[in-house]
This record gives sequence, structure tokens and C-alpha cells, in this order.
Amino acid sequence: MKVGIINVTGYSGIELARILSRHPEAEVTSVTGRSTVGQTLGDVFPHLSAVGLTITEEVTESVDVVFSALPHQASAERLAPFIDSGVKAIDISADYRLKDLDEYEEWYGPHPHPSHVEDAVYGLPELHRDEVAGARLVANPGCFPTPSILALAPVAAAGLIESDIIVDAKSGVSGAGRSVDIGFLFSEVNESVKAYKVGGHRHMPEIRQELGGLDGVGPVEVTFLPHLIPMTRGILASCYARLRVGESFSGPNGQARLIDLYRDYYDDHPFVHIADEPPSTKQTLGNNDCRIYPTVDQTTGRLIAVGCIDNLVKGAAGQAVQNMNIMFGMPEHLGLEELALYP
Amino acid sequence: MKVGIINVTGYSGIELARILSRHPEAEVTSVTGRSTVGQTLGDVFPHLSAVGLTITEEVTESVDVVFSALPHQASAERLAPFIDSGVKAIDISADYRLKDLDEYEEWYGPHPHPSHVEDAVYGLPELHRDEVAGARLVANPGCFPTPSILALAPVAAAGLIESDIIVDAKSGVSGAGRSVDIGFLFSEVNESVKAYKVGGHRHMPEIRQELGGLDGVGPVEVTFLPHLIPMTRGILASCYARLRVGESFSGPNGQARLIDLYRDYYDDHPFVHIADEPPSTKQTLGNNDCRIYPTVDQTTGRLIAVGCIDNLVKGAAGQAVQNMNIMFGMPEHLGLEELALYP
Amino acid sequence: MKVGIINVTGYSGIELARILSRHPEAEVTSVTGRSTVGQTLGDVFPHLSAVGLTITEEVTESVDVVFSALPHQASAERLAPFIDSGVKAIDISADYRLKDLDEYEEWYGPHPHPSHVEDAVYGLPELHRDEVAGARLVANPGCFPTPSILALAPVAAAGLIESDIIVDAKSGVSGAGRSVDIGFLFSEVNESVKAYKVGGHRHMPEIRQELGGLDGVGPVEVTFLPHLIPMTRGILASCYARLRVGESFSGPNGQARLIDLYRDYYDDHPFVHIADEPPSTKQTLGNNDCRIYPTVDQTTGRLIAVGCIDNLVKGAAGQAVQNMNIMFGMPEHLGLEELALYP
Amino acid sequence: MKVGIINVTGYSGIELARILSRHPEAEVTSVTGRSTVGQTLGDVFPHLSAVGLTITEEVTESVDVVFSALPHQASAERLAPFIDSGVKAIDISADYRLKDLDEYEEWYGPHPHPSHVEDAVYGLPELHRDEVAGARLVANPGCFPTPSILALAPVAAAGLIESDIIVDAKSGVSGAGRSVDIGFLFSEVNESVKAYKVGGHRHMPEIRQELGGLDGVGPVEVTFLPHLIPMTRGILASCYARLRVGESFSGPNGQARLIDLYRDYYDDHPFVHIADEPPSTKQTLGNNDCRIYPTVDQTTGRLIAVGCIDNLVKGAAGQAVQNMNIMFGMPEHLGLEELALYP
Repeated sequence: MKVGIINVTGYSGIELARILSRHPEAEVTSVTGRSTVGQTLGDVFPHLSAVGLTITEEVTESVDVVFSALPHQASAERLAPFIDSGVKAIDISADYRLKDLDEYEEWYGPHPHPSHVEDAVYGLPELHRDEVAGARLVANPGCFPTPSILALAPVAAAGLIESDIIVDAKSGVSGAGRSVDIGFLFSEVNESVKAYKVGGHRHMPEIRQELGGLDGVGPVEVTFLPHLIPMTRGILASCYARLRVGESFSGPNGQARLIDLYRDYYDDHPFVHIADEPPSTKQTLGNNDCRIYPTVDQTTGRLIAVGCIDNLVKGAAGQAVQNMNIMFGMPEHLGLEELALYP
Repeated sequence: MKVGIINVTGYSGIELARILSRHPEAEVTSVTGRSTVGQTLGDVFPHLSAVGLTITEEVTESVDVVFSALPHQASAERLAPFIDSGVKAIDISADYRLKDLDEYEEWYGPHPHPSHVEDAVYGLPELHRDEVAGARLVANPGCFPTPSILALAPVAAAGLIESDIIVDAKSGVSGAGRSVDIGFLFSEVNESVKAYKVGGHRHMPEIRQELGGLDGVGPVEVTFLPHLIPMTRGILASCYARLRVGESFSGPNGQARLIDLYRDYYDDHPFVHIADEPPSTKQTLGNNDCRIYPTVDQTTGRLIAVGCIDNLVKGAAGQAVQNMNIMFGMPEHLGLEELALYP
Repeated sequence: MKVGIINVTGYSGIELARILSRHPEAEVTSVTGRSTVGQTLGDVFPHLSAVGLTITEEVTESVDVVFSALPHQASAERLAPFIDSGVKAIDISADYRLKDLDEYEEWYGPHPHPSHVEDAVYGLPELHRDEVAGARLVANPGCFPTPSILALAPVAAAGLIESDIIVDAKSGVSGAGRSVDIGFLFSEVNESVKAYKVGGHRHMPEIRQELGGLDGVGPVEVTFLPHLIPMTRGILASCYARLRVGESFSGPNGQARLIDLYRDYYDDHPFVHIADEPPSTKQTLGNNDCRIYPTVDQTTGRLIAVGCIDNLVKGAAGQAVQNMNIMFGMPEHLGLEELALYP
Repeated sequence: MKVGIINVTGYSGIELARILSRHPEAEVTSVTGRSTVGQTLGDVFPHLSAVGLTITEEVTESVDVVFSALPHQASAERLAPFIDSGVKAIDISADYRLKDLDEYEEWYGPHPHPSHVEDAVYGLPELHRDEVAGARLVANPGCFPTPSILALAPVAAAGLIESDIIVDAKSGVSGAGRSVDIGFLFSEVNESVKAYKVGGHRHMPEIRQELGGLDGVGPVEVTFLPHLIPMTRGILASCYARLRVGESFSGPNGQARLIDLYRDYYDDHPFVHIADEPPSTKQTLGNNDCRIYPTVDQTTGRLIAVGCIDNLVKGAAGQAVQNMNIMFGMPEHLGLEELALYP
């Protein structure tokens, strides 16, 4: 199977190249960049020299699937001809994630290709695997929405939580990409934590759309606050919601019942692990796992669900490959079996 | 003024030694340790060799004030004779923070000296400066409660928020002290974030006591979740509360009105700074400031207030010196004027 | 092929489990620990739960090869019965690295099993591949010697450098293992660099033995100084040696000639990469590569060769698997094809 | 005493503002920036809001001393009118460090103001205090040369080492300034070490000039290799030199004699500390100390001297203030008494 990667030189693109280089069925045959056209991957990233590809301006040969790791807007533009010609497309940008075009416009500006939005499937396989299997265009979820939605979906789908949700997320710096900005210099970020996008972050509407779209749930409200943490990879989302009257998961078996509910929900999903203890992002370093720990704060009766991932794998390139596997009828975990790099 | 420090060899103790070495009115004349008795401070910590003190088992000469940087329980035991003999005492441990002895017992075990609890003043000067001024025993607040309470007090005192509060806190590793535990090894903590004490953290009741104790507020519920962050110093507390019906701080001047409310509240408190942008912990590195940014999430009408400090300064030794200054009628900021070390 | 791992719970052991879980020909069938007997690997390390093994006190079934990740002395003791019964053994400890028993005793104490020393092969495949192929006992090299020897061997073997060598090495903290020591706490290590073992480090004699043992080289002197760096994984060794009179690698093609000499030397060795620019340890994160950059300081005529590896992979578990592959006649790179995790 | 700071918005400039804000005799009355003219210091750096100054394009009022934290070339240009009009000047850039104009040109390009070079004093007070006292123009030393020269001067001046010197230096990232470069992004630097400027670094000739200029020493050769370390502040220089025949500092008192020789050399220099154990950069965080540990590798007879500093304090702004104190006849340590921030 031939694969093209548009904009291989950002962190998601590098990660696609790394993961796909070990995929038994996929072969990356064309990669594009912007300022590095004509160089080999190994010229730009010496640790990728074994991949042996030259960076071109456009995807140069017929491919079976194309990944775009471009920024939003640019991504939809560049994917359009592939989609129209029937090449399966996986968009790591935000361009096809939101179903409501007004909402897209509010956060990202006018949509470059609104006609494709309807066809796009939100590529969170744990919620939409069947649709992904039949999709020609998959919108790969945002890094923050991935663990946030996965941490809350079981209780939301079961009608157990109220609609007023808080997600307090902590992200490593690679989430900002290879963008050269004074705020992401080592000396500015190291030994420091801060909240950012306090006025509203583009990933909030994804969480709202997906949790609200679960069967029988309806509209939810999400307060989403991201924080920049002095580490390279990893996102941990701490999610808070009030339990509805009824099940309080109290008593001697309360925690066990809650864990069971989560494990049942993700029973046949290989990358979601419900942990017995609060997980650390290090337990997902470099692999496609999402680790979740749900509990109920017994003094306030509030559900707390903590989810964590590697933002560049399950939050970007790994999930994209998972989607590719599903789209092409391959085993979901193909090429994604690596264990976390620990410590 | 002669000062004794009990247990100078932990991080709070070292920090007391550092800060007091530059205090124009205080002279540290006696320091104690546990396994290092007989050594000089410089033997144990070469960078403190200029302080020139020998570590003894007990405070060896009459002092005007004694700081205890012992763990809880041990601290109350060792402070008792000083308190009884009229030496002013500042307890950095948790022993005298909680007014409700049952609550103390629930989190820490039976209180070693319940008779002193009533006399103790909770040493958050921004809330209790007058009481601190007259106190003979000050309970220095916990590192987490300090920025959490300060971030919420203005709106709580004004009756603007509902009583159901969430504090999501992120702490550097020095908050765990110099305790030798596999979980605090560099290789375990670095490049990782996790929530801990998910079942309940001892600092929660302090926050509940102090916010609930504000004039006219009454009982509050606090969900408190701390996270371990790969940095040495700093705490950032992200606090969430619903606004009561009425003031929503919306409209063109909403944010400005909110900022003004906070600035008015802390008008004559030199160490609290209400920021125009979300602060980073690095802006408080090594000094006694607490930086706060309040805002309202306009899509949900929820108040978000972010507060940050250096956990070893405003969260421990610096606040202790601030309390000492107040107890002895000195200017509150004496010896605490250092700007943050940035970057 | 059945594999046993003795002491799987240290960092080298965990890494063996991770790497071997993906090896197409090897199956780990027995793992031992010390304080964790009876627990599953997943109980102790949740990210390894998929491996599905229970930790026992002894290797419980017949295996084809056994790895020991025990500390020195204990390792030789525990390996002895396996060696005697003909099970191939790979010792990650230092017990069988030094050929001179007096030297071993000087650094490590009396050797527990001197009779096996003669049979042991120093398992640096780039120097001793043929001997490893026929070995029943392989001494896996130390983490520091690996990049140091590899960085200097080409010029040493060519008779181009004088015998007076300096190696200034920088190591991540995982090199110290999971040992609980105050000096490896996050707060002590972070934002700090220091030299250690200034009076002499146990890895120096390995470097001296191997460089001095190259054909035609003879005795060399090595000043070796390790430094502790605030990162988890990675070693970078900066090696300095005077060029002998003759070749100075000056002039327009000097650098190219030097690079060619190195590339020729490692021509058929898949894990050594001679870089065009000074490498960073990040380019080897999680994989078995050694990246080397040699150059000559033209103002002083001194050779500088910088080598870097992931200390837990090429410096420990990865190299051990490479040795296993060679011992069993499998392709050298089997199970070791992962690209570096970057960034 | 009125002070002006040219280019206050870089890391050296910020650090000057921080240190001088607490200096009892100096008052910063004018600060300049480039892209931030018209803003207050607090607008750009909230933690400096207490300083209360507005950034202007030029130093706006008569000052007694001016510091330049501009890059080289620009610095000499902007300082010229101050020097000509008799304002004392301290140049943190490299413009006046090298006495040999050809050497300056080789590394930095043609000198903008060669006529001032002769008057400039190399402001390493431990070597040139008397000249600094009478200087109108002080060239503040580079961050790398400071600990390198200080670590070797005692043995060089005593004629004990050969002239062939190696300095292997490790620097935190703030040494690169606030320059926005992809190579200094957190995600690129974190968890990685690399050598850089392998072909030659501009700070080498300073080390050569100063060690070679010691009484009776004569020309020395220096191989200098800097490394980028994942931390914000701190430089550690590991220096290697062969001992001349004669004194080998061996035997039971060898190390003590070496330590004594160093302590005697720096007897009346308050910021140099000869340590009993190898120091860590953390022991100098935020203060003006240089900590040095000398020893002799007894297996090779080579001197190893490790020196460390905070690159922004003793390596830049702190040393500049130390020079100011000397130039104006004030106590050398005024405003520089802070202890290190530890941990």
C-alpha cells in the first residue's frame, strides 16, 4: 500500500514517518515539505536517514492514502484534489473535525472546502470505528479532545453525568509543533507552568460535539483550560463532572463498579486501558495507548476522570495510522504494537 | 532578633536559612537537624557555607522566634516547650492549620497538642494579618492552599460564586520535600505528569476552612486534585466555580471589572499581584509573590481563577518570614524584596 | 526461542522486556525480581501489562538464553549454574567485562567466579562480532565504554592517535538505575550539572582494555570523567586525543577523509552511524544506534570524536539483544529496527 | 549613582535589572530596547513591574555608568559616544575582550571602534581587579571563559601545567539568549545533549589570551568544546591539562596541597569558592559565585579542574555589577550577596 505524507517536516509528519517505516503493509513513497524541498529526509532529520526519501513539493506518485500534517486551512486546500480523485485522505489538521460550519468559521475562519465536510468522519475509532471503516476522508481528532472524550464517554453515554463539564488539560510542548516562537524556547518553558488560551481554545468545540453527540446525551457545556508543562510529549486531561442523582459509586464496591463500567465500554478497543491507579503520561511515551483512571470524589460526589496519551501518537500520527488500518480493513493495531518507552 | 530553625535540612529549612541570611533584622543563631548533628550547614549544603552555623540536636540558645520545618506531629511535639515558654513560634507543618480537631485527626492522626490549637492563627497574612500581628503561634499555610485560597477569596468574599469549587493544582517536585522515594527519582518524574492523591489530599480541608470562613460565606465544597509536574519549584492552581446569578462579568468591561474587584481586595497586600495575562510560575521563582489571573469563561459563565507561587517561598519559608515580620511589627516585606529569577 | 530475564525490575530489565516483546524470534518465558515476586509485570509496571508474565524468584523453566540485569557480583553468582549447564548467558553487569582479574578486584572486589572469565566475550559486536557468535557467555559492555570505544576505535586501530586519551562523558540519570538515593531525586538533579567519580570510575578500565587491545595498538592511558546531566536517557562521550605526526586531516578534504575512514571502519555494522554534523542524544532515543562525529581541531591538531547512544538501549538492553541475535545466528538487527523517538 | 542599561530585554539585560533593583547605591534610571520602545519593563516582563521604568530607544538622561547588553558590533557602536563623553561603560558583549584586533576580526568581523580597544580592561576581577578599578571601559568576560580561566589560573600562574589545555564545557540554554531559533525550542533541546561549534567557538581566544597573559606563562593552546545541556542556567567547565614534571600532587596530602594552592590564589576574592567535592551548577543558581574543584587523575597524572557558575550572573550581569562596584570604589560584593537558590 502506497502512502503519501504532506508536510512531513513538522512533529506530526516526522512521527508518521517513524511509525509507518515499521508498518508491515504500508510503504511511504512520497513526502512533501515546504522549505526543505529537494533534501532527503535524512538531510533534515539525521535519525530518519534510513527512510531514504527525498522531500518534494507535491505528492509525486499515485498513492492509496494521503496524510496531511499541514496547518488548518492549508490542509483542506491541499487535500481537495486527492479527495476528489478518490484517494483516501486522513487529515491531521482541524479542517474536517467540526460538523457545524459556523462553529468552524468562528474558530478557524471560513472553511476552504465546505462541500467535503459532510463526508468527513471524525476519526476517533473508539467512538466511530464503523464509520471510519467506510470513510474516504477522516478528520483525525485534536490532541486534547482525544483523552478528554475518551475519559468521559463511558459515563456520558450511560447518562450518569450532568451536562456541565470541566476539562483541565496539561500538555507537553511538542503540541505547539515546530513553530519558532519565543514562548516555546527552552529557557521560557522550562521550570514553569502556565494556563494559556484562557479565553477559549479551538479544541473545546470538538469535545462538546463528540460528547453531546453520543446516543441519548444531547447538548453539553465544556469549560476547557489547557496548560503548558515543561516536558516534550504527553497530554493529561483531568475531567470533572457532577454525577446525576442515582448512582454515586460509593460503598465498598463503588470504585470497582466504575472501573467495570469503563472496561466494558472499551472492551474491544485495544488502545484504551482503564488503570487501577492514576496513570502518568510516561506510561504512554511513544505508543498509541490512552490510559484512563476514573473515580468519584466521595466528599463532593463529583466524578473525576483522568486520561493520558502521547500527544504525537494517539493524539496525532498514531491515531492517524490506526484510522488508516481501519479504512483499509487491516487489523487496527498493525504497526502500532510498540510498548511505551519507560523511563 | 534571634531566630532558631528546627529541621533546617529539608527544603523549607534550607529556604528559611537562605532568606533569613539576608534579612536585615533577623539573625539565625541556632539550627537543628536529624542525621546531620555536629556538621556545619556548609558541610551539608556547600552553597550555605557562608551562613556559618553548626547543626545541633536542639535549639541551643534563647531565641525570639522559632520556625519548625519538621513533618506534622513531630512539629507540634517539638514546638510545645517553646510555645509554653513564650517564644513566638511559626509552624511550617500542618499541625496547627485546622481548627477542627476531628478533621485534623482524620487526615493526620490524633493531635499531639490539642490545647495549643485554639491559640494558633492561620498565617495567610492576606486574610488574617491582624490576628497574625498578635499571635504567639502561627500555622503557616500549606503550599497548595496558599494560591488556591488567594485566587478565590475576592469572589467568594463578595458572594459572587457558588459553594461548589474545583481546584486543579500543578506542583513542582520540591513540594514532596527531600524524601527519598522511588516516585520522586528524576527518571520517574521527568517527562511525565500525573494526578496523585486522587482519593483526597490533606490540603483540601484548609481550603474549605478558609474560604468557608470568610465573612458571610458559609460552608463550601472543594474538589481538590493535585498533579506532579516535571519541574523543581512552583505551584499553579486553576480554580473553577460557577458564578451566582447576577454579575456575569460579561460585556466590554467585564474582564476589567473583575480585575478591579481583585485589585481592590488585595490593595494593601504587597505580595499579591493581579495579572493582565495568565501568569507562569517562572514569574515567581525564588520570591514571595502570588500572581493571580481571574476571568470568566463566557461560553459557560464559569469563573476561572489561576494563582501561582513558588511553593518553597510564598508556599513555605517566604510566607513564614512574612508572618514573622508581621508578628514583630516590622514591615511586611522586609527581607522578601527579591525579584523573581527569570528565566 | 525461550528467554529468561533475571532482575527484570531495574531499568535495564524493563528495557529488555520492552525490546524482546517485539522480537519476532524470541519469547520471554520467565522473569525474576527481588521485592516483587508473585506480582505480574503489569502490576509493577502498568505499561508492560500486555507482556503478561508473573515475576518469580528464579528462572522457572528451561530457557535457551538468559539475560542478567543484576548488579555486579550478584550477577556472576546467579549466572553460574546457567553457564555450567550450557544455557547461553548475557551478563549486563560488569562481572565478565575485564580480562584482568586484579583489575576487576580493584574496582569491584574479589571475582565470584573467576573460572568463567576466560570464556567470556566482551560483547561489543562492532569489535568482537565473530567471538560473540561463538560465545556461551557474553559480557555486555558498560554504557560509557560503548560510545567511547566506538568513537575512538577507527583512529586508534589505524595508528593515528597517541596513547594519551581523554573521555569527557555526559549521562542521563537513568544510568544510575532505579536506585533510591537522595542524589538522584528530581529536585537535586534538575537544572544542574556536575562531574562525579572524579577520583576514578569503573568504566575507565574497560575503555583502556578495549582500545589497548586493538591490533597493533598497545597500552593506552585514559582520563575518564563522567557528568550527570538533567535528562533521563542518553550518553554523549566527547573524546580527545592528539594525532600522531603524519596525517593531520587538514586541508580542503581533511574532514571528508576522516569521515571516510570512520565509515569504512564501520561499513558492515548496522548500528553505527558516522554523522555529517555533531549528533544529539535525542537522535538515538529509544533505539540501538550509536552516532559518531569525528573532527580535528585545526588550531591544536587534536582529534575530537563525539559519540552518543541511548544508555539503556545500545548502552544496555539493546546491545544485549544485538548480542543474542549474533549468538544465535539471527540477523543482527532483528527486533532492533525502531527509529529514534524524536522529539 | 545613575545607571543606564542598553538592551534590557535580553536575558543579560533582564538580569541586570533584577540585580540592580536591589543594589543599595545604584539606581537604574534609563533602559533601552529594540522592539519594545514605549512599553514599561512590567509590560514586557510582568515580574519586573516593580522596577517601574519605560523602555526608550536611547539612554535618556545623564548616567554615571552604562551597561550594554547588545550583541557584538552593535554594542561597540552604541557605547562609543558614552565612552567619548566620559561615562563609564561596561560592555557585556565581546567587542572589547580581545586585545588582538586581527583575532577579533577573525571571529567577529572588522572592529567598529578599534581606537577604544587599548583602553578596555578585561573585566575578570579575580585577575584584573586593579586595572578594573581605574578603567573607563570594561569588557565583561564571556560566560564560558569565566569559569574556565578561573579553574586553571592558579596552576597556570604557578607554572605547574603544560601549555596544551582542553576545556569541555556544558552550558544551559539561556546562554543562547532570547534568540528565536528552532534549535533552542524546548522540544528540540529537552532530553538531549550535543556538542556545538565543534569547528571553533569565539570564546576560545579569550581563554587563550588570559591564561597565556598570566605572569610568566606565555602562549598556550586551548581545545575548547561547548555542549548544550537541557537546563536553563548554569555552565560547568571541565578543564584538563598535563602537569609538568615535578609536582604531581600525589601521596596522602596531595589533594590537600592542591586545594591550598587554589585557596591561597583566590584568598581575597569573595566570589570564588574552592570546593571539597565536585560542585554542581545548582549551587550557584542566581548568584555570583564561581565554584571550583581541582584534582589530579592519579592514573594518568593529569590535572582536572572543574569550575561552575550561573552563566547569567557570574557569566554576565553579576560580574558586570561586580565590575561596576570596583570601578566606583564600592565594596566588591555590594548588591551581590544573595545565596544560591537551591534546589
